[in-house]
This record gives sequence, structure tokens and C-alpha cells, in this order.
Amino acid sequence: MMNAQATPAEIANVVAHVRARGYRPIELPGADRLAIGVLGSNPAAIRDAVVALPGVIAAIPVSKPYKMVGLEWHPERSVVAVGGVAIGGGSLTVAAGPCAVESEQQLVATATGVAAAGASLLRGGAYKPRSSPYSFRGLGAEGLDHLRRAREITGLPVVTEVLAPADVALVADAADMLQVGTRNAQNFSLLEAVGESGKPVLLKRGLSNTVEEWLLSAEYVVAHGNPDVVLCERGIRTFETATRNTLDLSAVPLVQSLSHLPVIVDPSHATGHRHLVPAMALAAVAAGADGLLVEVHPSPDDALSDGPQSLTLEQFSQLMNDVRRLVTALRHELVGGPSHGPG
Amino acid sequence: MMNAQATPAEIANVVAHVRARGYRPIELPGADRLAIGVLGSNPAAIRDAVVALPGVIAAIPVSKPYKMVGLEWHPERSVVAVGGVAIGGGSLTVAAGPCAVESEQQLVATATGVAAAGASLLRGGAYKPRSSPYSFRGLGAEGLDHLRRAREITGLPVVTEVLAPADVALVADAADMLQVGTRNAQNFSLLEAVGESGKPVLLKRGLSNTVEEWLLSAEYVVAHGNPDVVLCERGIRTFETATRNTLDLSAVPLVQSLSHLPVIVDPSHATGHRHLVPAMALAAVAAGADGLLVEVHPSPDDALSDGPQSLTLEQFSQLMNDVRRLVTALRHELVGGPSHGPG
Amino acid sequence: MMNAQATPAEIANVVAHVRARGYRPIELPGADRLAIGVLGSNPAAIRDAVVALPGVIAAIPVSKPYKMVGLEWHPERSVVAVGGVAIGGGSLTVAAGPCAVESEQQLVATATGVAAAGASLLRGGAYKPRSSPYSFRGLGAEGLDHLRRAREITGLPVVTEVLAPADVALVADAADMLQVGTRNAQNFSLLEAVGESGKPVLLKRGLSNTVEEWLLSAEYVVAHGNPDVVLCERGIRTFETATRNTLDLSAVPLVQSLSHLPVIVDPSHATGHRHLVPAMALAAVAAGADGLLVEVHPSPDDALSDGPQSLTLEQFSQLMNDVRRLVTALRHELVGGPSHGPG
Amino acid sequence: MMNAQATPAEIANVVAHVRARGYRPIELPGADRLAIGVLGSNPAAIRDAVVALPGVIAAIPVSKPYKMVGLEWHPERSVVAVGGVAIGGGSLTVAAGPCAVESEQQLVATATGVAAAGASLLRGGAYKPRSSPYSFRGLGAEGLDHLRRAREITGLPVVTEVLAPADVALVADAADMLQVGTRNAQNFSLLEAVGESGKPVLLKRGLSNTVEEWLLSAEYVVAHGNPDVVLCERGIRTFETATRNTLDLSAVPLVQSLSHLPVIVDPSHATGHRHLVPAMALAAVAAGADGLLVEVHPSPDDALSDGPQSLTLEQFSQLMNDVRRLVTALRHELVGGPSHGPG
Repeated sequence: MMNAQATPAEIANVVAHVRARGYRPIELPGADRLAIGVLGSNPAAIRDAVVALPGVIAAIPVSKPYKMVGLEWHPERSVVAVGGVAIGGGSLTVAAGPCAVESEQQLVATATGVAAAGASLLRGGAYKPRSSPYSFRGLGAEGLDHLRRAREITGLPVVTEVLAPADVALVADAADMLQVGTRNAQNFSLLEAVGESGKPVLLKRGLSNTVEEWLLSAEYVVAHGNPDVVLCERGIRTFETATRNTLDLSAVPLVQSLSHLPVIVDPSHATGHRHLVPAMALAAVAAGADGLLVEVHPSPDDALSDGPQSLTLEQFSQLMNDVRRLVTALRHELVGGPSHGPG
Repeated sequence: MMNAQATPAEIANVVAHVRARGYRPIELPGADRLAIGVLGSNPAAIRDAVVALPGVIAAIPVSKPYKMVGLEWHPERSVVAVGGVAIGGGSLTVAAGPCAVESEQQLVATATGVAAAGASLLRGGAYKPRSSPYSFRGLGAEGLDHLRRAREITGLPVVTEVLAPADVALVADAADMLQVGTRNAQNFSLLEAVGESGKPVLLKRGLSNTVEEWLLSAEYVVAHGNPDVVLCERGIRTFETATRNTLDLSAVPLVQSLSHLPVIVDPSHATGHRHLVPAMALAAVAAGADGLLVEVHPSPDDALSDGPQSLTLEQFSQLMNDVRRLVTALRHELVGGPSHGPG
Repeated sequence: MMNAQATPAEIANVVAHVRARGYRPIELPGADRLAIGVLGSNPAAIRDAVVALPGVIAAIPVSKPYKMVGLEWHPERSVVAVGGVAIGGGSLTVAAGPCAVESEQQLVATATGVAAAGASLLRGGAYKPRSSPYSFRGLGAEGLDHLRRAREITGLPVVTEVLAPADVALVADAADMLQVGTRNAQNFSLLEAVGESGKPVLLKRGLSNTVEEWLLSAEYVVAHGNPDVVLCERGIRTFETATRNTLDLSAVPLVQSLSHLPVIVDPSHATGHRHLVPAMALAAVAAGADGLLVEVHPSPDDALSDGPQSLTLEQFSQLMNDVRRLVTALRHELVGGPSHGPG
Repeated sequence: MMNAQATPAEIANVVAHVRARGYRPIELPGADRLAIGVLGSNPAAIRDAVVALPGVIAAIPVSKPYKMVGLEWHPERSVVAVGGVAIGGGSLTVAAGPCAVESEQQLVATATGVAAAGASLLRGGAYKPRSSPYSFRGLGAEGLDHLRRAREITGLPVVTEVLAPADVALVADAADMLQVGTRNAQNFSLLEAVGESGKPVLLKRGLSNTVEEWLLSAEYVVAHGNPDVVLCERGIRTFETATRNTLDLSAVPLVQSLSHLPVIVDPSHATGHRHLVPAMALAAVAAGADGLLVEVHPSPDDALSDGPQSLTLEQFSQLMNDVRRLVTALRHELVGGPSHGPG
């Protein structure tokens, strides 16, 4: 869009710049000012090429910057299989477990408990990203062994985080799904590495990533050959400090209107407070999420990481009962629900 | 908290300042540093008195700044009656209607439609706050007359916004509930005026207000003699621009853990996009909200204000069917539901 | 912008809606999709009319929503005279004084001190907006009398805040400039009232207002007949809690590229910490601000409001020396500087 | 802090939990409620252990979580030497160059130009993090060779970004300083790798990192054996979209009050608009920054990355003249200024 007082020379200069990049400019005269339309495949490049030229008021990209993850060109919704458990396709899948793997005993007790309550995936961190170098950062390879053992015992496929490209092979050997955490949501080397791993990827939204940036990060994974991406909303950073983050549940229907990838919700990191988790888990289900990721610990007050936001096994079991009622009311199906349920 | 290298003179100075304000300081020696505890009724005043003194690292208030709206001293939950319709108390109350009152015909058609679909309150703006002085700002007193007429016809009590202390008497004469909008959430003159109005107040959360600030605004109304306050979460301002605001649904259980006041949710202003409204309305119900405030317009594409976020009457009717299923599953009761429902 | 799969019927529908509003649509066919350009004077109305129609991907307004405050149609920069002191026009004007007027003695001592140090305007609040109803809210009419007295003694014109339309006449009788505070930045009744007051207006940016919204609020004042508006950047609300707000200094050159109105900076409320104020005051001068608004108190640790962010008279005097050096280096002129300076 | 109605059993339970972690609890009875003080070295662990226990209202950590980068235990300010050029110590150091290295010719022209204008370090990206996988991502190893060549010709030490732990050795072989970008500010594997690299590190603040988190990321680098860290403020993510990010200049004096590490400012990424860069560069100098990082391109409108925010060589030269005047007025010294200056 040109300034109302833009000179013919300024207009000609913009037109020339657009042509020099190989695009076709269209002049759109108006009452107040001239607009110049440009049609092409790389909107950001065009915008950068002209936005600072003399006489230009604004340059506004209009096509979506992602392609492979977008609904526009891929209207069928994706279902991602994780060790035999499906995420997406109209049912609800619950992954649960401790924030950090602390011991075989802690993990197996949790896994057994969440399986009995109706979870169909086990989550647990062997490698933990921590803001402080002095916090507990996970058991590493030993934690992976505990995850293998818990899977043997419970049959639950395992979701666990990977922090660095160099660890992808090691973690992928133990895990059924690789989690990319919020602080690594734009760690493009890691996105490429999990894109080449052959394992499904759980991509958390970055703390301050727009939905568009999140989808672009997913595009990195898919563009490196891995179509099995599940998005996870886990709260964004805002001015509100009463909760750990602000859970952006509207991202669920929004993502579903833009992308064919499944989207699940982590109410534990989003709120940071155990007493807020059940309400937000139910809200996520009602918003249409394809699944939940819930932190559960057999003894949260003794947890080495994120205890305050972890449910006890009893609380998780009660939550799953409420989830079941909601899923029925909304005419969805709970993945793994019937066989694991208490009835 | 004192600096690790704080001198005895600096410590004595802090102690003296605290005593000079009439409070009792308690010294708490630690490994690294000294903490000085102060107990009293006005934490902000104490903090301001000492935070900038030499040797002080931080001053941290620990008691809640609100009293009358807080759950700590008033553990019974409030139920607010609006023209005979209750908000709070475990049931779900739905207010619906157009963003702006445009004509008697438009309003009556909408009111009749939302009543038939199961709404129990009518919303509609006669005075509209608009960012631009050139936007449509409402019909004013004529709009109030249309609201009176719609109430006569449908029996629905009316919720409408008031923008200035000078308008409170006029609007209160027509309305069953006075709405204070997001841009006026810290307009303290207006809060005092509605506090003296004798009518229930719907207090929207300010665009960038913390939950604590929101409760303090409610405290203004209650402290001026009006206990009938309902809080309304309507989205906060964040970095995400794909939605009009970011609906902070975690504020629902959070407010319920801090205050006895009912809290409802406005998914229309929060998302700004019609196709996101039903999912977020259902999510609000599942999160435990005491009610919904939904924009409905018989012909949204012709609306003078906020058309893109308004549901059609058909969409609203479908939403109410889903809400009913959810309310049943969650064992709540829908206020006015049975008598107004389509069956 | 239309969806890539938009049908001819969807396109015709959009075209019809645009025409029905009295605007002229222009079809812009592209490789992937169709864009429809619309040229007219009310971009928000057009956007609302079409954004939710079937097949529409996005509706993007391109002309500025403000006119009278914009530089595009009013390229000469405004200079606002406040009781004989100019703000704008390439010089630097400093307003200083206490957050709240506490007593005649406190105010006169501060006013005398800041005048001696080189300030050319006196600031001080008689009516204070406070988040809590239990905080000190100002002396009211008595405070206005103290301001009159301080002006008599020092000759400094007075800037003070007005909170409600009903108070405008009273405050305007005492003040040389009316301040509209951050919480009232979108209190449109108040903006209209100060627009009709005949006194210059200092319009603080709302806590979460974009620069565009801020300019629209200024447009309210100017559109009600008052061209004498000075904008004041005072920090916005972000996720960072180490400072009271986040001072958005880039708003200074940005506003100057969009509007002809002068813009000044309040480093006191922006940072909330006395030790950060001088650095940010100097930064504001270097960024090109037309003035500063600084909180100064003869004994900040005894202040009834905002003590932690107030400078002592000695600190303010030192700051003014640094400001003078900076103004000289940048070849500006300090308003009132030479005659009031300590030399 | 305990609830006002906390029972003796709840209080005893908190005391027991604190003791079980090896810390000493101190009871602080007050008018309204009981506070329990705990003194120990890992405040986050204590908080997590008690915050969700019954009867607990809040758990508030009071000691700083970083040690090695903090001013409290290391009061002497650090000066970091980069290939013979000092950053910190009261002088101002300017790094300039293109966003991306595009060709030897482009880089050498830029380097020669910025050296002549008074820059003392050359910046330029060979590996570029980009939100979209379809954007230009840098020349890689070939870009490193161009940087070596530009250093040979101009004598300017080189600052360039490293994206992955696996690239650290390769990049460190060519660079005098390793940059960790905003999206990797909490990529802890990368922070550890540059901590072991033996090269000085330029650590950009994460898009949504608090100052405390930023200092903790610096602590990672220092704790891995590398004391040579320079912090770089480059704008944070807020609701304002008129600028690319919001430059948080108050972080400069704030960091200087908390840490001994030098802090510089990048006005180019912060604003995203060339016409705002000079004002914000001067503001950064006035705020007390130890240096600037400025994007300069011989022909910005042809740049492959970030052209709209790059200065031309002429604009940069003019900016350096203004910087020099400011540095003189503030009685600082411009590193490399006299020998490279045009005079």
C-alpha cells in the first residue's frame, strides 16, 4: 500500500522491485491511495523486498506460509499411530505419567495406576530441560531403561522428551513417540533430527509462539519426511502470573480449522497448579482436543520436578471418570477407555 | 529480604521504617541473608515503605489485598439474582443477544429466538465503547426502549452496558443488570457509581488485568454497597493475533478458588471468530463457569458491530443443544432450560 | 482473500455484500487464489461485513483508521502550549513532581526544588486512580488548591489527572493541562469531556493499548474540538515482572512517524524502581522524546503513593544535569532550562 | 504462608515436609495468619515441596537462583575480550554487518564500510534460524570462509551465530565470538556446548524470557567453564505488532544492577524497521549499554534476510557520528572509535 502522497517515481520503483524478484505486480487505484497487488509463492520474501521502499505504507502477506501441514491443500484429517494407539480421528487419547522419571519403582507404580484409570499412553521425562543449571535434570539413559520396563509391564506406549539432535537415536530406540518441548519449539536442528527419526513426534507449542509459528515448526518435521506429528497446546506466556502459563484453548479449534494434524492439550504445565488441572482437562475435551497429556505422580509432594502441578493417582482416576462422562456426552470415543476402565 | 552484605545500620533503618508505620518487624536470620517479616493489614503500603531502602533486595506482600469478594473470609458462594434469574449456585445461566441494539425489529427477533433456544437473559448494547470515534456507537436512549420492549415480549431480563457515571441512573432504569466493559474495568468512578446503583453488575475482566486486579475492581463495587457482582472472563490481550483476544479459561477455576462471586464466560469477544465460539462455549461449561454470554444476530453479516463473532440463531440453537448435553453429563442444571427449550 | 477452493457462488456473494455497503470491489486473480480489493473510507466496517462469509480466508484493512492526529494528512508537527510552556517543536520539556499531592508543604518544597533543577512544568495528583479501594486516593479539591498555591510560588504551570467527566470542570479550573491516565485511556466519555474542556490534554498510553489504539484515543479528543494533545508513553504490560511495566521507547520514533502530536515519556511508572529511572529518562531523550514526566518526592520513603519509583530532589537535580549534557550533544534545546538551571 | 483457617495438623504437616528435605522451618505468627520461613540454598525445590500442601496459601522464594553471573557474589564488572576488542568496562563497542552472509563481495563491502564508519566488530550469519523451512537459511561453511576473509581484510573480529551443538567446533574455528540466538536462548544443550567452546559467547535474550531466565541461561554457559558471556537485549514479544518486537531497554540498567556481565543492544531485530533503528541505537547508548549490534547491508532492498531492518552504509555512518557525540556527552569511550573514525 502506497502513501497517499507517493510520487509516480516511488510507485515505479516498487513495481520494478517486484518485477526484479520475478513476480507480477498489479496496480489497484483507490480513492485515497494506490495499492499494488503481488501474487506469488513466497509472501515473506516479497514483503521484505518492498516494505521499506520510499512511499510504501505497508506490505501485507496474504497466503499461508505453510503447505504440508495446512488443511487447505490436505483436507483429510491425519491420525497418528503411536505404538498401536491412535491419536486423532474423532476419539480422545490420554497420555499420563510423571514429569520426570525418578526411579523404576516410581515409574512402574505410576504407569500401572494410570493404565488402570484409563490412560493409553505413558509420559515421563528422562531428559529434562530446566531453566536453572542447578535443578534436577533427569536420569538420562537410566530413565530410558525404566520407561522400557514400564512399557513391558503395562503395555502402554511411551512418550518422552528429546533435548538435542545427538540424543535422538538413543531416545528413539526407547520411545514410541518423541516429545519436542516448549523451549525447543524453534530449535530447528532438533526439528530436523526428529523429522528424520522415523518416530511420531509430539510438538509442544513454544512459550511465545503464535499458532502460525507453531505450524511452521511442524512443517519442518513433516518436510524432513515425518508426517506423524501431533501438536500439543501447553499454555503461552502472558502478563498473568497467578497461573504458570495461560492455557490458550482457543488454539484447539483454531488449529483444527487450519491444519489436518491432531492437537492435544497439557493442562498440567499450562496451569502449574494441581487444583486447576481437572477443570482445564475437561475444558480441553469439550473444546474438541484429540487428547490430553497429564502429569500424575504417586506422591506429588515428594516429586523431584513439578510436584505442585501433578495429580495423585486418585485424582487422576476421578478425572478419568469425569472425562468418560464428557466423552460420552459429546459422542466421542475414549481410546483404550473400555478395556482399562474401572468397570 | 536484605542483601547478603547489608550492614547493621541498613538493617536498623528498615526496622525503624517499619515501626514508624506502626507495624511489628520480626528478624529472620538465615544462612545467606537476613529476612525481616512484617505483619499487618495493608501489605502494599508496607512494601512501598521499605522496598527502596538501602540494603533491601525485595519486599514481598503475602496477604490478599481484597477482603469482601474473597473466599477466605466469606466461604459461602454467592448467587446473584437478575430480574428473577439466578447466576451461580451450581447451575448454568446463558445470556445471549446482539452486540449492539440496532432496531426494535432486530432486537425482538433476536430475543425471541434466543429465548426459544433456551437463553434466560437478553444481552444487547445501547451504548457501545468503540476504539474509533468514527465507528457506530449505539442507539443510546432509543436502544434502551427497544430493550424494554424485548423484555416485555419475551420475559427475558436485560443485561446492558453502561459507559459513564452520568448514565448509570438512566441505564439502571431500563436494565436488570449493568455491564461494566473491559475498557472500563479500572474506571473507578464508574465502579463506584454502579456500586451505588442498586442493580446487579456484570464486571468484565480488563484486557490486561490480572485476576487479582479484577477482584479488586469487584471489591470497589461491593465496598460501595452492592454485593451482586458477577465476573465475566472475556479474553485477555496477548501476543497471539489469530484470535481477537486469548480466552483465559483457567481464570474460571482460579477465581472460584479465590472468590465467592459467580464467574461467567464470553466466548464471542474472546475469540472474535464465529467458528471458534461454540467450542469455547462448551469448554467454558466444562471448566465450571456459572454462565455464558454469547453474541447472536439474526443476520450477522449485516450487523453494525461485531458481526464476524456473532452466531446465527440456528447456530445458537445448535450450541444450546450441545450445552444441554454437557450440563447433563456434568450433573449441573441449566437455568431456564426446561421451560424455554425447544421440546 | 478467498480460499483456493472458493466457488464462483461464494465469490459472487462477497462481491454482492461489498456492493450492498456502497463500496466498489475489484477482483484480483492470482496463481493460487482470488483476492478482492475494496476501496473506501471505513476499513473496519468493510472487514466486518465480509470476513465471515463462506470462502473468505482473510480481510485486511489497509488505510489508517485515524485522520486528524495522523501525519499523512497533517504533515506539520504540532507544538502544544501549556500555560506558556511549549511541548514539541524540537525542544525538550520536563514535567516533574510528586505522584500524589500530600500537603501544601510537601508540594511547595517539591515544586521549588524541581524548578530550581530545571523542570518547566509541575506534575502532581489530587485525584488518584488506585487498583485497590483501600489505597490512598488523593486529597481531591484540597489537592487542587495546593497545586494553585505551588504554581503561584514557582510560576510552573500544573499538570494533574482527571478521573471522571463530572470532575473535568473542577480540575480544569485549577490545572494548566489535564492528564488522562493509563486506566482511562479508553474511557471514551472522559476523552470526550476533556476534548471539550479547552485545556491541553496529556494522554497516557493504555497499559495494553497498541500505538494505533492510542492514536485513536487521541483522535477522540481532537475530534471533540481540542487539538492540544500530548501523548505520553509510560510502559506497557508484558510478561516481565522485574519492572512495573515495560517501557516501549520505540513507540517514540514510531509515533513521530505516524502522528504530528508531541510525545513524552514517563520513566517512573514505566520502571517502578527509582534506580532505573535516570537511565530510562536519558534513553527517552536520546530516542527523540519531546519531554519527560518524572516523579520526584522530597522524602520518597515517606511517600503515600509510588515512593519506590520517585527520585529525591538531589537525584532529580543530578538527572537534569545529565539531561542538559545530552540535549546539548543532540543539538536540542531544553525548555526553561537556562533560566531555571543551578548555574 | 498458611491460610487464615489452617489447622494445627496442616501446619505440622508443612513443618514436617520442610524438615524432611533437610531445611529448618521458622514459624512466624501474625494477626491474620501464620507464615513459615525456610532458609536454604535451593529455593525452587522448597517451594515445590510445600506449595500444594493443605492449608498453604503461597510459597515465595526469596534468594536469587543464579550465583556465578550475579553481582551479589561477584561485585567487579566483567570485561569480555573478543579477538582483542573489549566489551564492557565503561566504553561502547559497536558490532555491525549484514543479517546473513550472502557472498564474499557483499560481506567484504559491508565489513569495509562499517569499519570505516567506526564499528569494531563484524557481525554476519552463516547459519540462520528461520521460522519457515522455506526461507533462506544461510550459506553454512561457505559463509564461514567469507567471514574469515572479511576479517583478514578489515581486521575486525567476527561474531556469528551457531545453531546446534554439533556445529560449535566448526563455527568456533572461524568465529571470534559465538552468538546464541533468541530461539535457542533456552536450548540448554547448545548453552553447554558453547560453555565448553573456549570462545566468548553473545547470548541473546529469548523472545519471552524474563531477565531472571536470561541470567540463568548465562549461568549455564559460565557453569560449563566459560566466563566470557555478553548479554544482548533484542526485543521481547508483546501484544504490540507495529514493531517486530518490543525493545526492553530497561533491561539494560536492570541487568547491570543484578549481574557483572556486559550487556549490549540489538535495535535492528527489536524494531524490525530501518527508520526506527537510529533512535533506538542512541537510546540504548544513553541507557548505558556496553555496546550495539546493528544490521547493515550495502543494498538492503536486495537483502536475502531482514532487509527492511538493515541500515545502508550511509545511514550507519551517520548513526556512528551521532553515537560519537552521545558517547562524548556521557563521558564514555567508543572502542575503536578514534582510529576508525572518518576524521
